[in-house]
Amino acid sequence: MLSAYSATSKKATTSVLCRVIPLYRTFASATGAPLDASKLKITKNPNPSKPKPNDQLVFGKTFTDHMLQIEWTKENGWAAPEIKPYGPLVLDPSAAVFHYGFEAFEGLKAYRTPGNKIALFRPDMNMKRMNKSAARICLPTFNGDEVIKLMGKLIEQDKNLVPQGQGYSLYLRPTIIGTTAALGVSTPDRALLYVIASPVGPYYKTGFKAVRLEATDYATRAWPGGCGDKKLGANYAPCILPQLQAAERGYQQNLWLFGPEKNITEVGTMNVFFAFKDSITGMKELVTAPLDGTILEGVTRDSILALTRQNLDPKEWDINERYCTISEVEERAKKGELLEAFGAGTAAVVSPIKEIGWKGSDIEVPLTPGEQSGPLTKQIASWIADIQYGRTKHGNWSQIVADLN
Amino acid sequence: MLSAYSATSKKATTSVLCRVIPLYRTFASATGAPLDASKLKITKNPNPSKPKPNDQLVFGKTFTDHMLQIEWTKENGWAAPEIKPYGPLVLDPSAAVFHYGFEAFEGLKAYRTPGNKIALFRPDMNMKRMNKSAARICLPTFNGDEVIKLMGKLIEQDKNLVPQGQGYSLYLRPTIIGTTAALGVSTPDRALLYVIASPVGPYYKTGFKAVRLEATDYATRAWPGGCGDKKLGANYAPCILPQLQAAERGYQQNLWLFGPEKNITEVGTMNVFFAFKDSITGMKELVTAPLDGTILEGVTRDSILALTRQNLDPKEWDINERYCTISEVEERAKKGELLEAFGAGTAAVVSPIKEIGWKGSDIEVPLTPGEQSGPLTKQIASWIADIQYGRTKHGNWSQIVADLN
Repeated sequence: MLSAYSATSKKATTSVLCRVIPLYRTFASATGAPLDASKLKITKNPNPSKPKPNDQLVFGKTFTDHMLQIEWTKENGWAAPEIKPYGPLVLDPSAAVFHYGFEAFEGLKAYRTPGNKIALFRPDMNMKRMNKSAARICLPTFNGDEVIKLMGKLIEQDKNLVPQGQGYSLYLRPTIIGTTAALGVSTPDRALLYVIASPVGPYYKTGFKAVRLEATDYATRAWPGGCGDKKLGANYAPCILPQLQAAERGYQQNLWLFGPEKNITEVGTMNVFFAFKDSITGMKELVTAPLDGTILEGVTRDSILALTRQNLDPKEWDINERYCTISEVEERAKKGELLEAFGAGTAAVVSPIKEIGWKGSDIEVPLTPGEQSGPLTKQIASWIADIQYGRTKHGNWSQIVADLN
Repeated sequence: MLSAYSATSKKATTSVLCRVIPLYRTFASATGAPLDASKLKITKNPNPSKPKPNDQLVFGKTFTDHMLQIEWTKENGWAAPEIKPYGPLVLDPSAAVFHYGFEAFEGLKAYRTPGNKIALFRPDMNMKRMNKSAARICLPTFNGDEVIKLMGKLIEQDKNLVPQGQGYSLYLRPTIIGTTAALGVSTPDRALLYVIASPVGPYYKTGFKAVRLEATDYATRAWPGGCGDKKLGANYAPCILPQLQAAERGYQQNLWLFGPEKNITEVGTMNVFFAFKDSITGMKELVTAPLDGTILEGVTRDSILALTRQNLDPKEWDINERYCTISEVEERAKKGELLEAFGAGTAAVVSPIKEIGWKGSDIEVPLTPGEQSGPLTKQIASWIADIQYGRTKHGNWSQIVADLN
């Protein structure tokens, strides 16, 4: 059951988006040898490091002893994969990655299960998206299953560095860059796919910490016909300045709006969800922006949609991917119809929102009294953590890639 | 005198653009020591190379023997500049430039003058724009005059490699990248500014070669509230796929359109100009898109506007920065009012256009019979070349930076 809001806001945005024809064909230059995990060569790091205490882990600052690296050339395709000691990349100063934004990445986590095995959370989704990102900027595509196997081997090398405990994990960063050493703007004929790994702690050390957002319409994160739905470097650097400007005004992140209707698209570098309750019908609704080409196809977003559709009573909850404007949020908050709001992404899983600055005042988002989130946000976090840490089974979402026994 | 077209198309786009508030404040983190050319340290390349014959020069594939490099840290500011043998960059695989698009660049050329000196063409414009680009993605800003001095020193080292002859020059590529070795998405606290130099020949070896463009509305290069007016890596990689798609259909480049009005914005990686003649009044008009935040602030664009305003008879020519839609071009071509069209940028200076594919047919752009450009395009190219090679003086546009005598 859609509320009155959904029908109107959906219609209002069609005019902007209907004229966008997707880039239906890709020129993924995956010629030559396919990426083949069985060709792996391993060079062990002669100086293995010791795990840092959990309380010293900072997101993405310390890395494990090894990295995975696979070179690609147009002539020969994918070379034999290599696992080798973590170390610098040596690249010509004219390399395409330094000049024209030929770079795409992924972020996913490996968790210790109760049986002391190591599991990746939905890595197939990351590999699928990474291939889409690479193809969008004419970098070579690859067989994702082979890279999942190789990430398993990488974790195997450094399994003693995978931290233990609820909220702790090994963050993996697959990256692909264009390395052609020439300044002409064209399809790179050389590329490098690499994976580095960083032991990380919980995003919020002491449970949730709800954030204040600034609804942002003066800077625009993504546009129809652009590539805001891909995980490209291009989408990140331009978002720092608006974030600093929001921070100066006391808001941690931007709530990105789009178009004359001011549709809510994302928050910071995460997808965003709103929960409403219709004051007349009593029906509740969980809403996130539809995948129209301007929204990152978040793995956490997809998981939340699947889990809430599966676990919440459809007589009580509608789960909708639809346009939702900042005005709708403002009006429904005034009527007491706004229940909860949260960001969703790999780093924090869910990130509760407590206030949204808009037109000089703050829209208040309810939290459970004395807590830093609402009940649904907390419930969703718990469902996902149980699957990630292998306490609950959910299809093939949790994939064992290494064994510490 | 504006034609009827200009008034309408200007009005039509106001609705889209008026809601965009510029990012008025930058957080240029230029703390610490300023960039100081007098601190330069030079390490000579022990293996100097010989100049390649002019006919073997390929744009941006061969580089001179030296490069300029200046490191920046948040704690200490700009370190002493270094000129050293051309060689690879050694960077941590977690460096910000590989993941989040922290990269901006410039392109400018050094020319041999008749007196055997070496002159840069309007380098102050490039430095100004590079600072704007850096500030937009929170990389440090710097004193552009110091970098111009340092580029002069760099050219001095390799002055025997600056090619001689009309159309030949030394292409300089100043680049700034964020080098912080950490995966958190935030303002880089380390950066590297470097300049490499490539001896290049004329863009068209045998005079002009007019190109066929595909008017592109299914992919969008830049948008209000984005950063399409800055020279960021982010703006380039996403444009390759639409170019390959256009090429498959027989067009060399994309003519980028924007918005429901389908305003013409740029061509490939260049600004674009159209010349019209009103069939009733006989008045001629040279048109390029206004700098509304979606258009690169091209140095060649600016030079063409200044030179045509200075040299063309205002009783005969209007020089206008205004919105111009693809429909206007189509209609005026039909009426015989379209005189010429050309791209404008540092690499080719001017690049004549002969056809524009739109809605399944081609808009024909007139050329001088038996030639590959129209008369105005040719005239403009000649005015600019005369200044670049020091044959004509134009204020401080041509700046001597080295002496071969």
